[in-house]
Amino acid sequence: MTERYSTLSHLECPKCGARLDATVVQGTCDCGSPLLARYDLDAARGMSPAGRAPTLWRYHEVLPVSAESAVVSLGEGMTPLLPLPVHGKRIGVPDLWMKDEGLVPTGSFKARGAAVGVSRAAELGVRGIAMPTNGNAGAAWALYAARAGLRSLIAMPVDAPVITRAECVAAGAELYLVDGLISHAGALIRKALASRPDYQDVSTLKEPYRIEGKKTMGYEIVEQSGRRAPDVLLYPTGGGVGLIGIHKALDEMRELGWLTPETRLVAVQAEGCRPIVDAWEAGAAESVAPAAPTTIAFGINVPKPLGDFLILRALAETEGTAVAVTDEELLAAQRELAADEGAFVCPEGAACFAALIRLRESGWLRGDERVVVLNTGSGVKYPDTVRVDVPTISADGALPDPA
Amino acid sequence: MTERYSTLSHLECPKCGARLDATVVQGTCDCGSPLLARYDLDAARGMSPAGRAPTLWRYHEVLPVSAESAVVSLGEGMTPLLPLPVHGKRIGVPDLWMKDEGLVPTGSFKARGAAVGVSRAAELGVRGIAMPTNGNAGAAWALYAARAGLRSLIAMPVDAPVITRAECVAAGAELYLVDGLISHAGALIRKALASRPDYQDVSTLKEPYRIEGKKTMGYEIVEQSGRRAPDVLLYPTGGGVGLIGIHKALDEMRELGWLTPETRLVAVQAEGCRPIVDAWEAGAAESVAPAAPTTIAFGINVPKPLGDFLILRALAETEGTAVAVTDEELLAAQRELAADEGAFVCPEGAACFAALIRLRESGWLRGDERVVVLNTGSGVKYPDTVRVDVPTISADGALPDPA
Repeated sequence: MTERYSTLSHLECPKCGARLDATVVQGTCDCGSPLLARYDLDAARGMSPAGRAPTLWRYHEVLPVSAESAVVSLGEGMTPLLPLPVHGKRIGVPDLWMKDEGLVPTGSFKARGAAVGVSRAAELGVRGIAMPTNGNAGAAWALYAARAGLRSLIAMPVDAPVITRAECVAAGAELYLVDGLISHAGALIRKALASRPDYQDVSTLKEPYRIEGKKTMGYEIVEQSGRRAPDVLLYPTGGGVGLIGIHKALDEMRELGWLTPETRLVAVQAEGCRPIVDAWEAGAAESVAPAAPTTIAFGINVPKPLGDFLILRALAETEGTAVAVTDEELLAAQRELAADEGAFVCPEGAACFAALIRLRESGWLRGDERVVVLNTGSGVKYPDTVRVDVPTISADGALPDPA
Repeated sequence: MTERYSTLSHLECPKCGARLDATVVQGTCDCGSPLLARYDLDAARGMSPAGRAPTLWRYHEVLPVSAESAVVSLGEGMTPLLPLPVHGKRIGVPDLWMKDEGLVPTGSFKARGAAVGVSRAAELGVRGIAMPTNGNAGAAWALYAARAGLRSLIAMPVDAPVITRAECVAAGAELYLVDGLISHAGALIRKALASRPDYQDVSTLKEPYRIEGKKTMGYEIVEQSGRRAPDVLLYPTGGGVGLIGIHKALDEMRELGWLTPETRLVAVQAEGCRPIVDAWEAGAAESVAPAAPTTIAFGINVPKPLGDFLILRALAETEGTAVAVTDEELLAAQRELAADEGAFVCPEGAACFAALIRLRESGWLRGDERVVVLNTGSGVKYPDTVRVDVPTISADGALPDPA
């Protein structure tokens, strides 16, 4: 058996079946579909992450970077899988867990895709990366690009979390704010690339390796559970890369002989932007963009995800479902979870906790399942989600007596 | 050899030498000094963290919590120790590393002290915790208290990072803003405790276990370096708990037989609040509070640390030093580090990078040392430290051509 750092073999189109060379820079398939990385999984069967450092690179055999020396890392991965017994009991799902992606560089799970995507882009000779973003992805890619010595061109809606601007600027990115949605930012980036030939378009699913970084969340959840997959996994779904990635990871782990049972995957969206939920309920294979999408959970304000058919396929193949919640529900869930468990999650993660309540009430969840919620980032990047209304006391004053 | 989860034996006063019972709730010594936890280190010699989960609890034999079931955890610890080759070369310290405490719950190293302090307080029967804070410590303690089912009473200056208010409120804390400094907040808390007899005062160094959580940074740095201690460690010093803790950890590791050489410890402060630097330069054993302390690195705006004598002792015993930098220097260092290495650090951490330049210029650093900088938190909690001045483009506009 060979001992290759990566067992990457080729790229494959999940729509038309085309097979592409993985040793050169690739974007999407000629048919328009995102591409998926494929590995020589027989050669990866001996992968033994247990003794390795606690980063996502412990799964390097099933990642696309060909040598350890080409890894661009800020220490991302092996985030906690936390039990939530108090909150789980309260909502009738006692075996409840949270994968906490607040504990990665940049405070958001976007770091995983950026680490792997930037590493592979730099290894293949890319000199600059360009992308539209709802904030966190742009911040992560700009910072990893800086670490790799690549330039970055980022466009984000003016409504994106303000802190992500500071991250891009600190990283030295060329940053533009856009008075519109991420789809408008995407159009601006595509036009700008015409005069920037040495930049790669690394928009969501327009290059094949971001998904490989995201899939490591699936590997970690299974490793941290003693090679047991959860019964149900809830994922806040905008572009859906993590959901597609975790689905891919579960498939790979079955091929590697790690797993047998299936995990039901649940896509969670906001009522103000629910293209996947609508498509799922209609039994459609693709989504239709809503007219005026809006939600406080900005990371999932994605009107028409490029990988919509892959998301819907993942839900169907795993007998999962799709659920939308209101902003009021998700903000209430964010507060309740923090008070119950001390975990201050991002609004996107909070949407999943709100969705749990709906799924339990509808009977889709019986209550005896092992359920993992993927919290995609730290609440500290969203100062406006919590209403703070507390007294200010003068320096020589006194605190009120207890009520 | 016994196999106790903790080898805690007693509490000791580092000023008067008194020995206190560690099985009941304790504050400071009767002489006013903070107390230090002592262990039966002979019984802890077999400690073998290598195969354990990547949290600070991998060192449970030298932590005060008596049983795994009493641990209150959000997955804190084993943060990355990152090489910074590009920035290191630029400033003439090529073997430069950063311990990145941005990757813990709440995005600040305060989580370590809170995890251990809250766990032990709850185990000993405490029902509520009370403290003044410059923001991050209060947020961390409030969230861990929520997880433990304890109440919390927090007072912070109105100038503290705004996001830390949201964290306290989400956790369900009783929060007050104070129109003054952390010292004023401390006085308000002490008065308020009179009518709240079931709360423990967990102000910096007024209970013995926060330091035990912080010391794990020292254990981790040494474990992650293959049981090698760095030659020099820079630490942004406000209350100084981490510096005292790391010094204690290095001493313990020598007793455990892990280490021989000494690490020179460097306390870094801001020019606007430099009591330790002044005391160090004057050869004094204690510090004097400055009249009007001010710095953008709010976490180190502590005019009179209770543990000043322990900080100064740590510097003297390790042949270290103390350095102050201006806000302009630390903000420049924050930007330069992000652009060089993709690491977006908090202003307190950035102060250490600015200090490196001074120490190299003065010759105190020769340039061949292995140097570790402790970055105490994530830059994402400080949106105002980076000036963002970028164009806004209309949705149907175009990005400018490259310069």
